[in-house]
Amino acid sequence: MLDTGRDARRLESYLMGAWRAGAGEGQPLLNAATGAVHARISAEGLDMAGALAWGRQVGGPALRRYTVHERAMMLKTIGLKLMEMKAEFYAESLATGATPRDAWPDIEGGIGTMLTFASKARKELPNAKVLPEGPVEMLSQDGSFVGQHVLSPMLGVAVHINAFNFPVWGMLEKIAPALIAGMPCLVKPASGTAYLTELVVRRILEMGILPDGALQVLCGSVGDLLDHVTEQDAVTFTGSAATGQKLRSHPAIVANSVRFTMEADSLNASILAPDAVAGTPEFDLFVKEVQREMTGKAGQKCTAIRRILVPNGQADAVIAALSTALAKSVPGLPDRQETRMGALASLADRDSVRDKIARIAQEAEIVFGDPAQVTTSSGDPEKGAFLNPVLLHCADPMGANAPHDIEAFGPVATVMGYDGLDQAVELAMKGRGSLVSSVFTNDAGNVTDLTLGLAPQHGRVLIANRETAKSSTGHGSPLAPLIHGGPGRAGGGEEMGGMRGVKHFMARTAIQGSPTMLATVTGQWVAGAPTQDDEHPFRKSLETLRIGDQLITARREITLEDVEHFAHFTGDTFYAHMDTAAAQANPFFDDRVAHGYLIASFAAGLFVQPDPGPVLANYGVDNLRFLTPVYFGDTLGVRLTCKEISPREGTEYGEVRWDCCVTNQHDAVVAQYDVLTMVARTWPLLTA
Amino acid sequence: MLDTGRDARRLESYLMGAWRAGAGEGQPLLNAATGAVHARISAEGLDMAGALAWGRQVGGPALRRYTVHERAMMLKTIGLKLMEMKAEFYAESLATGATPRDAWPDIEGGIGTMLTFASKARKELPNAKVLPEGPVEMLSQDGSFVGQHVLSPMLGVAVHINAFNFPVWGMLEKIAPALIAGMPCLVKPASGTAYLTELVVRRILEMGILPDGALQVLCGSVGDLLDHVTEQDAVTFTGSAATGQKLRSHPAIVANSVRFTMEADSLNASILAPDAVAGTPEFDLFVKEVQREMTGKAGQKCTAIRRILVPNGQADAVIAALSTALAKSVPGLPDRQETRMGALASLADRDSVRDKIARIAQEAEIVFGDPAQVTTSSGDPEKGAFLNPVLLHCADPMGANAPHDIEAFGPVATVMGYDGLDQAVELAMKGRGSLVSSVFTNDAGNVTDLTLGLAPQHGRVLIANRETAKSSTGHGSPLAPLIHGGPGRAGGGEEMGGMRGVKHFMARTAIQGSPTMLATVTGQWVAGAPTQDDEHPFRKSLETLRIGDQLITARREITLEDVEHFAHFTGDTFYAHMDTAAAQANPFFDDRVAHGYLIASFAAGLFVQPDPGPVLANYGVDNLRFLTPVYFGDTLGVRLTCKEISPREGTEYGEVRWDCCVTNQHDAVVAQYDVLTMVARTWPLLTA
Repeated sequence: MLDTGRDARRLESYLMGAWRAGAGEGQPLLNAATGAVHARISAEGLDMAGALAWGRQVGGPALRRYTVHERAMMLKTIGLKLMEMKAEFYAESLATGATPRDAWPDIEGGIGTMLTFASKARKELPNAKVLPEGPVEMLSQDGSFVGQHVLSPMLGVAVHINAFNFPVWGMLEKIAPALIAGMPCLVKPASGTAYLTELVVRRILEMGILPDGALQVLCGSVGDLLDHVTEQDAVTFTGSAATGQKLRSHPAIVANSVRFTMEADSLNASILAPDAVAGTPEFDLFVKEVQREMTGKAGQKCTAIRRILVPNGQADAVIAALSTALAKSVPGLPDRQETRMGALASLADRDSVRDKIARIAQEAEIVFGDPAQVTTSSGDPEKGAFLNPVLLHCADPMGANAPHDIEAFGPVATVMGYDGLDQAVELAMKGRGSLVSSVFTNDAGNVTDLTLGLAPQHGRVLIANRETAKSSTGHGSPLAPLIHGGPGRAGGGEEMGGMRGVKHFMARTAIQGSPTMLATVTGQWVAGAPTQDDEHPFRKSLETLRIGDQLITARREITLEDVEHFAHFTGDTFYAHMDTAAAQANPFFDDRVAHGYLIASFAAGLFVQPDPGPVLANYGVDNLRFLTPVYFGDTLGVRLTCKEISPREGTEYGEVRWDCCVTNQHDAVVAQYDVLTMVARTWPLLTA
Repeated sequence: MLDTGRDARRLESYLMGAWRAGAGEGQPLLNAATGAVHARISAEGLDMAGALAWGRQVGGPALRRYTVHERAMMLKTIGLKLMEMKAEFYAESLATGATPRDAWPDIEGGIGTMLTFASKARKELPNAKVLPEGPVEMLSQDGSFVGQHVLSPMLGVAVHINAFNFPVWGMLEKIAPALIAGMPCLVKPASGTAYLTELVVRRILEMGILPDGALQVLCGSVGDLLDHVTEQDAVTFTGSAATGQKLRSHPAIVANSVRFTMEADSLNASILAPDAVAGTPEFDLFVKEVQREMTGKAGQKCTAIRRILVPNGQADAVIAALSTALAKSVPGLPDRQETRMGALASLADRDSVRDKIARIAQEAEIVFGDPAQVTTSSGDPEKGAFLNPVLLHCADPMGANAPHDIEAFGPVATVMGYDGLDQAVELAMKGRGSLVSSVFTNDAGNVTDLTLGLAPQHGRVLIANRETAKSSTGHGSPLAPLIHGGPGRAGGGEEMGGMRGVKHFMARTAIQGSPTMLATVTGQWVAGAPTQDDEHPFRKSLETLRIGDQLITARREITLEDVEHFAHFTGDTFYAHMDTAAAQANPFFDDRVAHGYLIASFAAGLFVQPDPGPVLANYGVDNLRFLTPVYFGDTLGVRLTCKEISPREGTEYGEVRWDCCVTNQHDAVVAQYDVLTMVARTWPLLTA
């Protein structure tokens, strides 16, 4: 009986504020493990230029009305709700051939990545619409002309052209930073597994949390979409190098200098260091990791280990141990409890992997498995895209090309022997740029040369040893706080990397002007900008406090007695404070000096307003520098100025950063730092 | 008499360790102001692949043997020596048509940029070969698996393809960050003014400061150079968008994901805000700046003002004032004292500018000047590439294309009226991405909307008003600490921007592993990495101190009496320390708490070793956070661990960063911060 799938789900695209079906009956998408028609897809006749314009004109302005923290809070809410719905996504994911274990990094890893971005953005970025970046730069001697970089959301659409192998994570890891940045997204999933992406987008949009136009999804062919991108759009691509290079050279992308990020092929290497001989924990961890990377998602991961670099003397032991491990990885239907490995995404993918194995095998020998023979634990070996693991051994890796050049995107890897650390690095480099490399070693002597040797050619280097056996997230897992990408063949892109990923979707602009103008524009007080001193600023809640609110304190003398008293009280009898001769011999001092901590303590004594009030706590100090020694008899005063006000979403208080400048009687700056306080929104405090 | 220039200087290329002449007699390069043959240039037959290989195999390894500070010191020495030689460069510069005043930003601005990079690198980057970037990221709950980004020099060559208009600055602003990063450079100046670049390179190489292969120069056509770039090379380009787009699409650049930075056309706008009416200081500053930007370097600056946006009602006044100012800018021989404006770089350039004026004039009217008529104060108007300033007025700027689209690279600009701030921004945006825009306003109400409106489409926005009249470096000056570049038409690149520019030439890699392994690789101690406590670390000089050297102090109780005593001694009687009821009402505290500054002071009392020794001074504190309230009766202890050691070049001491972790009796972290000290290289201190 032929399953024509006429009744299979017709995927739609959400564009210009509505779910829209493409013309025609659509291309059938088959269940990877059974061959049944699972869904149909078509984007024929959809208006690509209109979708981009909708994002720019409706989604962008709506997103930019919120602050970074407000947008991050939206994603937190979305992420938590998606996590509650995960069972539905796991069920839909089975059609891709992935086992639930394979689907975990896609579904929960994807949602977790979104939540990490939402959390880090609120911790690490100010709650503002425009983000100052880096220090204020003095551009003139007199301080009247200064500069500051600011980041603001780009005005276009972030177009994400994603790969088939991570239909959920691939979308969420890209829309999370873009949406936090304030940029609307248009997601174009790979057709093969678009049904899962489409389902997740439906659920997100049904929540009604994102403003209209912030998230669009295009199911089907990309059509003339890229003809319409402009200099304010950004395009990210994950997939094959061949397609990526075509997109990178697209006339509209080139002519408009469109920000283009690519994450493409990668012949990732894992290196067993010379110390990690058979019998060591590192040897066992290595074998386990290689087996896991070869068979997880049936080897269809951009980060999977393709090249297994081992000391020449260890090749036989590694091949033997891997063969034993891989023999247990028999593919089967992904919904069966006992299945150790799922299917490839399609029969066409299996054909491609077999073809590539054959090409690698011209310069290497198959030492485990037979690509022509499929053995399954369940499921039809011909209707399902099943393939058993294949291990190759290349005897002349320095002379060979194919194992360094051909990415068989399935459960396939090649063992190669190396002679010395330099050669191990050289072999890894033959991949000409990879997403990740891993080093298995417990020897501090090996780890530096290997890691730093690999670094310039890899986006990520994992060091694995017995210390991280339980806690390591493994070779194949990109993590939200770290960059994901690599040079050369890997596409030259950078994704994620914590707030770096958010900034990728923002424009960086150097603003120059007077301190007054700069403070007006950025909303952060800058030295030289106007100040007000109508009331002690510690009496003001967030409702009334303004940047530039300033206190100039009375002056206080620091005496010999103060220093001696403080020294004996705290126990800090460091010679520079106590011993005239030793202080005078010191290259930085002419005589005994006051303690830095005494200066900061006296400064607080000068600026604090003691009565109960809206200032709730001093939670820290940043960038404290002692700039001029304080000698006995000097008198100190403080200028304390409100610099930055960042209300905290969902609480009754916010962070206030104060510029604290301590000067002596000659007006020389003795100490300069930021005092960090928590301040109530209102005073008296509203208690929930 | 025809000057064939057979005896003119033959430029050479410094490639593969030697000065090499190209084949043939070479293309003649004419003096821009006189038409005489000034030099001849040919790169025919030079080995481009060999030059890149030389840079990678000889220059790169040699540079990477030094630390960032050592390389920065080389550039400081070179910069200071170049400054002493500047007269020779000014003399050679005359042939380009530039007056000495025009040449100042090129020659002294270029050398100054190099010196700024050399200084900032030593202040802002650690003295190391590999630079940790950003915080250590906890990747597991138990802290046994952590991550850190590191930056290491790319292993290829930085190829700089430069424009004719800044033969010195254009080279120095690019090689400075690349060489500090540790990347060898191959400079390819535009042929037209290559004689000046070649001369400066000769002087640099004669100093013998740079290792061989660190700096190569290619005078003449680029030939097949780009066919040989790989994923470890970087290519920067400054010049026309047409050429830039061709380079960006070059097969080797696309296939290898070569890092490519472009700085191209830019129709920079300057905006007179509505408040800056005739009679205000801002109006006068605006007219002066536009005149200066139109005529400086005869308008041949990528950052020059091309579009003059004024409120509709001010257009006549601006045209009148500019016409008066421009009438004084009569071109002449650049070596004459009285000359107000030099020549264009060549007669061909003049033809091109005239052609573009004609095209702009199809949608605008010439209101000052006549491109067909040349009047000079000295020099032959036909042999020299002289052109008098031309001002146009476009009556329908919202409907017009040419004035927003055609960059006449000479003393040419177009006045356009706008109606309201939104339209001013919209008009500026019609340039589709610019290097810089300026806003002349003294009104805080106008400045934010204008500046933030312009920001996403501009690499730099200058705010000009009366406060910066004397100190502003002006619309047209890129500065080393700020980024230079812009989206879209401007090429989408970023140069300079302080240490961001250095990092552009480094590979970023996420390293993951145990704290021990990470510390081994980066040379920075990480929480969880091994520690040693053989001796109080304050007794160790840089010679003996090692990261991980740790002191665990005795514990000290904090009593009610301590807090009251400290409060009255310092004057800090903040209610949270003194008033039980008020402290209990505070959302962060359960009871009265100890002062943060008391905690830090007691901590110092616990960890300080008081005797004269190699620790010379505490110069600051970074990232201090108070994490757990300290109540009376709590006992505090400190773990002080040596985290980073950065010897300071040319001194007898260096910076040592200590991880300071203060815990209470429950082992909760009460305060966490970095203590910054100066430590002697040896003890006793060697005095010079």
